[in-house]
Amino acid sequence: MNFIIRPALKDDMGDVLSLIKELAVFENQPDAVEISVEDLINHGFKSDPMFLCHVAIYGDKIVGMSLGYRRYSTWKGPTMHLEDLIVSRNYRRKGIGKALLSNFVKVSSLRGVKRIEWAVLNWNSDAIKFYEANGAKVHDDWLVTQMNEVAIKKFLKNNNENI
Amino acid sequence: MNFIIRPALKDDMGDVLSLIKELAVFENQPDAVEISVEDLINHGFKSDPMFLCHVAIYGDKIVGMSLGYRRYSTWKGPTMHLEDLIVSRNYRRKGIGKALLSNFVKVSSLRGVKRIEWAVLNWNSDAIKFYEANGAKVHDDWLVTQMNEVAIKKFLKNNNENI
Repeated sequence: MNFIIRPALKDDMGDVLSLIKELAVFENQPDAVEISVEDLINHGFKSDPMFLCHVAIYGDKIVGMSLGYRRYSTWKGPTMHLEDLIVSRNYRRKGIGKALLSNFVKVSSLRGVKRIEWAVLNWNSDAIKFYEANGAKVHDDWLVTQMNEVAIKKFLKNNNENI
Repeated sequence: MNFIIRPALKDDMGDVLSLIKELAVFENQPDAVEISVEDLINHGFKSDPMFLCHVAIYGDKIVGMSLGYRRYSTWKGPTMHLEDLIVSRNYRRKGIGKALLSNFVKVSSLRGVKRIEWAVLNWNSDAIKFYEANGAKVHDDWLVTQMNEVAIKKFLKNNNENI
């Protein structure tokens, strides 16, 4: 293997944000990324970090990353969530995604969790095949539901007297 | 309103577990609940609690609960996840679910998050209607993917040399 996986440093967050933006374009949401390098540093490198991040280095370039955090299941207890697993387009098919996944599974296992979970877009068949080949189960009965910032404000305004 | 919503106490975890089990039966997964009252106390009431929980009290009985925790979006920053919103079957249609949701949205808003999210089963049309009526968007393009304890062990065994 001519790449390495290592924990991300503060100085990597610029490259990590570039990968996040590359994925957003691939997912047809180029304007969805509101986060900044400073946010990533503030959120990920404080005493109670909001996520853990690893990067893949090929040559001297950051070409991939994984980012995840703790979740909690009322059925199983502590779990881990893989928020992003990204390999830059020109560095695919070199085993980097598999190595990033292996690293995340290993780190999660060392934390003693009973489940790792993430979400995949239903049209991303390459990703679905990759995950299923590695033993994950892709569920089609759970629907991701979100209340965004605008909806939160509207909800609170509409329900002011009931809270 | 003849009920109140308040933060859960350690002593409530027995009733909370009963509600979790009631929901698991409703979701056709009666054997999925592996967690114990002791687990819930250990995980939720330590210095770095893994979740926050509120209960709904009707008369002197716990008849509903919400349970959630912090998540992180690489697009939006800190978010909140609503893992469970449960109202016991005999206490529905009294506004308790709405009050629990309102409370969770308010607590999340005070934490400054830009998104609240959760998952709903695609056949649970009452829940879907309830969430949509309150401004949430139910997505049908994201698939929940999970690697369970058995799959994690198998994956690590198969990939031992690559980690």
